[in-house]
Amino acid sequence: MQLPLFYVDDLIKNALAEDISYLDTTTDYMIAPEARNKAYLVAKADGVVCGLDVAMRVFELLDDTFEKELFKKDGDRVQKGERIASYTGRTRALLKGERTALNLLQHMSGIATATAEAVELVKGTRAAITDTRKTLPGMRSLQKYAVTMGGGKNHRFNLSDGAMLKDNHIDAAGGITNAVRMLRDKLGHMVKLEVETRNLDEVKEALEAGADIIMLDNMSCEMMREAVALVDGRALLEASGGITAETLRAVAQTGVDVISIGALTHSVTAMDISMKMEA
Amino acid sequence: MQLPLFYVDDLIKNALAEDISYLDTTTDYMIAPEARNKAYLVAKADGVVCGLDVAMRVFELLDDTFEKELFKKDGDRVQKGERIASYTGRTRALLKGERTALNLLQHMSGIATATAEAVELVKGTRAAITDTRKTLPGMRSLQKYAVTMGGGKNHRFNLSDGAMLKDNHIDAAGGITNAVRMLRDKLGHMVKLEVETRNLDEVKEALEAGADIIMLDNMSCEMMREAVALVDGRALLEASGGITAETLRAVAQTGVDVISIGALTHSVTAMDISMKMEA
Amino acid sequence: MQLPLFYVDDLIKNALAEDISYLDTTTDYMIAPEARNKAYLVAKADGVVCGLDVAMRVFELLDDTFEKELFKKDGDRVQKGERIASYTGRTRALLKGERTALNLLQHMSGIATATAEAVELVKGTRAAITDTRKTLPGMRSLQKYAVTMGGGKNHRFNLSDGAMLKDNHIDAAGGITNAVRMLRDKLGHMVKLEVETRNLDEVKEALEAGADIIMLDNMSCEMMREAVALVDGRALLEASGGITAETLRAVAQTGVDVISIGALTHSVTAMDISMKMEA
Amino acid sequence: MQLPLFYVDDLIKNALAEDISYLDTTTDYMIAPEARNKAYLVAKADGVVCGLDVAMRVFELLDDTFEKELFKKDGDRVQKGERIASYTGRTRALLKGERTALNLLQHMSGIATATAEAVELVKGTRAAITDTRKTLPGMRSLQKYAVTMGGGKNHRFNLSDGAMLKDNHIDAAGGITNAVRMLRDKLGHMVKLEVETRNLDEVKEALEAGADIIMLDNMSCEMMREAVALVDGRALLEASGGITAETLRAVAQTGVDVISIGALTHSVTAMDISMKMEA
Amino acid sequence: MQLPLFYVDDLIKNALAEDISYLDTTTDYMIAPEARNKAYLVAKADGVVCGLDVAMRVFELLDDTFEKELFKKDGDRVQKGERIASYTGRTRALLKGERTALNLLQHMSGIATATAEAVELVKGTRAAITDTRKTLPGMRSLQKYAVTMGGGKNHRFNLSDGAMLKDNHIDAAGGITNAVRMLRDKLGHMVKLEVETRNLDEVKEALEAGADIIMLDNMSCEMMREAVALVDGRALLEASGGITAETLRAVAQTGVDVISIGALTHSVTAMDISMKMEA
Amino acid sequence: MQLPLFYVDDLIKNALAEDISYLDTTTDYMIAPEARNKAYLVAKADGVVCGLDVAMRVFELLDDTFEKELFKKDGDRVQKGERIASYTGRTRALLKGERTALNLLQHMSGIATATAEAVELVKGTRAAITDTRKTLPGMRSLQKYAVTMGGGKNHRFNLSDGAMLKDNHIDAAGGITNAVRMLRDKLGHMVKLEVETRNLDEVKEALEAGADIIMLDNMSCEMMREAVALVDGRALLEASGGITAETLRAVAQTGVDVISIGALTHSVTAMDISMKMEA
Repeated sequence: MQLPLFYVDDLIKNALAEDISYLDTTTDYMIAPEARNKAYLVAKADGVVCGLDVAMRVFELLDDTFEKELFKKDGDRVQKGERIASYTGRTRALLKGERTALNLLQHMSGIATATAEAVELVKGTRAAITDTRKTLPGMRSLQKYAVTMGGGKNHRFNLSDGAMLKDNHIDAAGGITNAVRMLRDKLGHMVKLEVETRNLDEVKEALEAGADIIMLDNMSCEMMREAVALVDGRALLEASGGITAETLRAVAQTGVDVISIGALTHSVTAMDISMKMEA
Repeated sequence: MQLPLFYVDDLIKNALAEDISYLDTTTDYMIAPEARNKAYLVAKADGVVCGLDVAMRVFELLDDTFEKELFKKDGDRVQKGERIASYTGRTRALLKGERTALNLLQHMSGIATATAEAVELVKGTRAAITDTRKTLPGMRSLQKYAVTMGGGKNHRFNLSDGAMLKDNHIDAAGGITNAVRMLRDKLGHMVKLEVETRNLDEVKEALEAGADIIMLDNMSCEMMREAVALVDGRALLEASGGITAETLRAVAQTGVDVISIGALTHSVTAMDISMKMEA
Repeated sequence: MQLPLFYVDDLIKNALAEDISYLDTTTDYMIAPEARNKAYLVAKADGVVCGLDVAMRVFELLDDTFEKELFKKDGDRVQKGERIASYTGRTRALLKGERTALNLLQHMSGIATATAEAVELVKGTRAAITDTRKTLPGMRSLQKYAVTMGGGKNHRFNLSDGAMLKDNHIDAAGGITNAVRMLRDKLGHMVKLEVETRNLDEVKEALEAGADIIMLDNMSCEMMREAVALVDGRALLEASGGITAETLRAVAQTGVDVISIGALTHSVTAMDISMKMEA
Repeated sequence: MQLPLFYVDDLIKNALAEDISYLDTTTDYMIAPEARNKAYLVAKADGVVCGLDVAMRVFELLDDTFEKELFKKDGDRVQKGERIASYTGRTRALLKGERTALNLLQHMSGIATATAEAVELVKGTRAAITDTRKTLPGMRSLQKYAVTMGGGKNHRFNLSDGAMLKDNHIDAAGGITNAVRMLRDKLGHMVKLEVETRNLDEVKEALEAGADIIMLDNMSCEMMREAVALVDGRALLEASGGITAETLRAVAQTGVDVISIGALTHSVTAMDISMKMEA
Repeated sequence: MQLPLFYVDDLIKNALAEDISYLDTTTDYMIAPEARNKAYLVAKADGVVCGLDVAMRVFELLDDTFEKELFKKDGDRVQKGERIASYTGRTRALLKGERTALNLLQHMSGIATATAEAVELVKGTRAAITDTRKTLPGMRSLQKYAVTMGGGKNHRFNLSDGAMLKDNHIDAAGGITNAVRMLRDKLGHMVKLEVETRNLDEVKEALEAGADIIMLDNMSCEMMREAVALVDGRALLEASGGITAETLRAVAQTGVDVISIGALTHSVTAMDISMKMEA
Repeated sequence: MQLPLFYVDDLIKNALAEDISYLDTTTDYMIAPEARNKAYLVAKADGVVCGLDVAMRVFELLDDTFEKELFKKDGDRVQKGERIASYTGRTRALLKGERTALNLLQHMSGIATATAEAVELVKGTRAAITDTRKTLPGMRSLQKYAVTMGGGKNHRFNLSDGAMLKDNHIDAAGGITNAVRMLRDKLGHMVKLEVETRNLDEVKEALEAGADIIMLDNMSCEMMREAVALVDGRALLEASGGITAETLRAVAQTGVDVISIGALTHSVTAMDISMKMEA
């Protein structure tokens, strides 16, 4: 698993504790401990599957006799009706883990699918699709991983590992030029510096101050095209703010390098995947 | 706060650890520790606000000088452009907590808003809107709370606190009648028993076996109407499975008591709310 | 194991950390790491054994070469002198885990044994024996499980999964009738509602208000018999308050459905079980 | 509070999480958030109160407006009917914290009371009463503290902080003399060494080998008296094994220095204390 | 505090749990709970103080009546004999927190002092001093913060937030050029890419492949000077490997941009600071 | 492993979470998941190796296919250039675990090596070398274990398991004699009592009061010799305070029983050990 196992295990144990509490009042009272079943995952919609290792891990943590066969791997496209994986284990474990496994798999696949759609829309342009920090608490690693499985790239992970000058920072320093200089003086050499801008004057100032990346915040495509021309490859340009499926391709065609989309992680539509148990 | 404080605090600390890591490389290097600001939350869309106490708690955990004034409370409707809260604190704390606070508030308000829309659609019928166990890991309490703030009710919280007989349990017991009898024998007197059914024969058998609630799984409205007639108030009826905004009112008009909707928590569209800092 | 493994493992690791701290200053300094032993558990009193999987898990967490043979399973009766289990492992692990394993096993067996005695006393009546929320911190799942292994049933697990109207709630609502109506309006359809009563007028009001369960709080057997006649099967009746081994059968013979006993979990007498190592 | 606050807080949060889960379905739905009450704790039996700070801390963690007045402190005797403390706070917090506070207070007071009874029984002899490692998981600090509040002393806290040679260690070393020498060679200078013995020959060998403490394991009073004479103050003597209220004074009169009683912590009878809310 | 409070608090609670366990057997038994004292911190050596907020936080967590006056702040130079802070609180808290507070303060001040010495040695050159990932488990944030307080800068915090191509990665890709191209294709736009090199050919290849930073691994000063000339400002150059106080200035004078020193965090000499209590 | 596995695992997971965060942006993007490598650990300096099991455990937690061969065990001397262990596993796991494993191994070996040097210096005297409570947060068990592997012994682990009277305690009691008497009255029989002294009068008073151990705090060798003569074996004597390699033998030759050295754990020089991967 690419995601750190200790992170995944903690997340799953937390989810199982929520979902099972101290017993499954139906399964533990109705199903014999030694009963075994075969089950499979099947896509109920087209999409990009993601979270398979995580979903399987749910059952592994509940059942040390669990065995699986995966027909797909994270990042693969699946069609409605396709089988994704087949597995056998104790019936109690399959029933008690089902909901937690599906909740994780459907969420991650939803993100990967939406990302893949965005990536498809910008095909042929130079724009990469990235996520943001608009994630759900405790799930950032999971969500950022799913974005990459959909073909997207990751923006900074947190406030430590990338610098981003916004209004308040710039005001405190008395302008972009000063702000960049002050910050460069303190930043480690591995940290990139991005500056938020709202018009071409700011773009120009950020460029001259030496920003690594310039964010074009809620600009029109027209203005972004001018920014691209103005910067001419001397810094990376990131389009951001309210970009939807409808406007995405037009934004990409302005020539920006990166388009960041908060909805990839803050407004996820779960992909419909179900688990079937064989009689 | 109605949600347990220790749960909320742990969730927030976890989210802040993800988002801040060891320093805010921009804010900690640019903003003086003693600088203070006033800020406010403003709705960028119509909806039902939820998570205000949680969002404010983010800042309280970062800043013991934080002071707030709330113009709305959880469950209140807000209009696009309305101010929701106003607060002052250390600039560093406001900037470092902003993303975490908004991520929580927008998610919870998204759930409350979607729930309120569903509740509105079934107005005048006997049907209550409930959530499911299709929640995100570690967030079930938060999400279930948001459903109630939107006017919905909570289905069982976990596998311990309500019994639900599904295919596998019923098969293992050799039919609904046997399954209900076996389970009743073990269940505590505070636990309700629900049976999943797919046709009227099963409804009838579940009723006669003494189910407290009968789930009508993916039935047509026609069939549900017949089930309502057949049961005639002797058990609660829950409609479940693929119910959308388009079909919701029709389902409610069949006379069922409860309609459970997984999408309320598994496919949340964040409500757009932003934080503005005063100059 | 029916109890969730992640719950049990955390509990055991916590107990081992308390008991071992950073080394067993006697065993780690005296016993060679490769030394192995055979040991067995033997009952030093008659009773119902409970916690065997939990006790064995202690050694499994300390020793990946541990092997066991169980002669009994949770819920089985044992006689003084009977062997319960036999196992082999590293001598260090056996010595370091002994106290923790026994502490858990003796406590859980103590609960199961006391519960079985209560169940035996009400044999032939309609009364089920249940626990309460009078449990020890962090041990509720373990204790409630042990009650079921002694033949008892579980009352509500926590304040979320069952509603219980007490004086203060009733006073706040202005009487039982109002309180039940107000609460029903908010409760999910999976949650049962119990009302505490202290006399027959209250029983009557609770019944008419539609309580699922009526608690008869510290009533005389005489009054409970009248309550049983009055309710006549239209709600479940729970006897509660200061019921001892001496009074238990008389209470059961009043015809109540449920008798809840706090002492099952708040005043546990450990069952005497010891671990013997073979030479 | 003498017990470390971080330990107590974690224990309480864990207990509250068990008992409240995500809401108090009765209290949160019935009682207005701003409602306040006065309540008090009253003894329902004679005993030694212990755990007052811990019990009050439960409410403090739920309610930052909580105010208390204590009439007793840990270790004080109380009579049936006496008020122990009086306090005011939000009604919701009082109701939600009641069970957890009482569970802790009754358990700790039960231990202190039983210890005080044992201490009373050995009055006038040289024997001190101590606990053992037969404690409940996660509760050792709480339980050992309660023993001291009842007038007892603490035996070693864990396997690190005191050395105790038992059969297996002695066999591995080829006799008591060798075992003591081997172990002394490795023990830090702050660690005491105790040797378990079952007859006078072993007592003699342990004494000559230089044991700090000699445990007299399940010996008759006759044999213990001889051991006391034999040792004559050159080592401490600890009586251990199956000592009950009936035999305790006789054991103490043999002249041993310490009597350790597992039942003080493994078989606790909760002291009856209740919380009353004023109208 | 710039370090996240939740991180610091967890670290301190963990340290206090290690150091206090369940009671301070001397202090809790000897000092009255209400006794108060004044104390101060005094430098026993010249150096740069760091960790003052952290050290004070230890006492704040133990004593809600604690009051402090700081004469220095993190990053300030102190002379042997100088007072750093003065504070008052409960005597018990002062005595129980002393060791933990000093352990943290002395370690962090040791790092800051060593860093300041290194920074002093390279004064007047273009070289910045940075740390590495050679830190102690659980203490990276604390240690990296101390480096900045000594005037150093931080290298990448972890394996996520900066890319560093080493032998194995380069071999797997078939050379530096391929490796850089493959990696750039996947890296987010906020992540910098550093390449380890051992000779000038590799430096040249890394430069042409487009590395952001080129690490000169264990090179002679001679070779580093040539690398500086060859690269001529088109990438940052980092000297690394076995650099000591003796060789540091010479390395800096080669013209490299960054010198990373593992010993700053892996081989820390605690700065001598003591706590004195007033009579 | 002598160190408790649950403690080691938690420490490692914490360290890995710090070092890996959510992915190794170089390794996960460059190395195929199925790639495998052989690697070995080699000493880059003479010393005493310690932490081998801990270091290997890092890889075991990352890779369930990991296999190892150890050429040395904890406490063994190694020469510069010697191979310590050889192992194979997934290349990703080896690269991701390398830093964490080395950080632990080098720190622990550094402690063991410095301890062994101190032990060597006192050879032939009666003095044992011990550590202190001057340890790093969360690492006390690890550090104290390393001291024993270097041939040292452990002082008290925490404030619970040994009593040490310092100025403040003595002042509060009105002198050493009173303080010892008061404390003895409360201490359990397994706890030793040490008294800090600064001159011969205090030594004499402590001896007569019945201290088990007398600490000679920052005394001259001359004074320590007199203390040894005065005490004449009736209590253990511990030399403490600013003892360095230069003064150590002279201190030992005074005849004290124990010399405690804070620097063993507060100022650790990591031992240079590296990991080499085979092509």
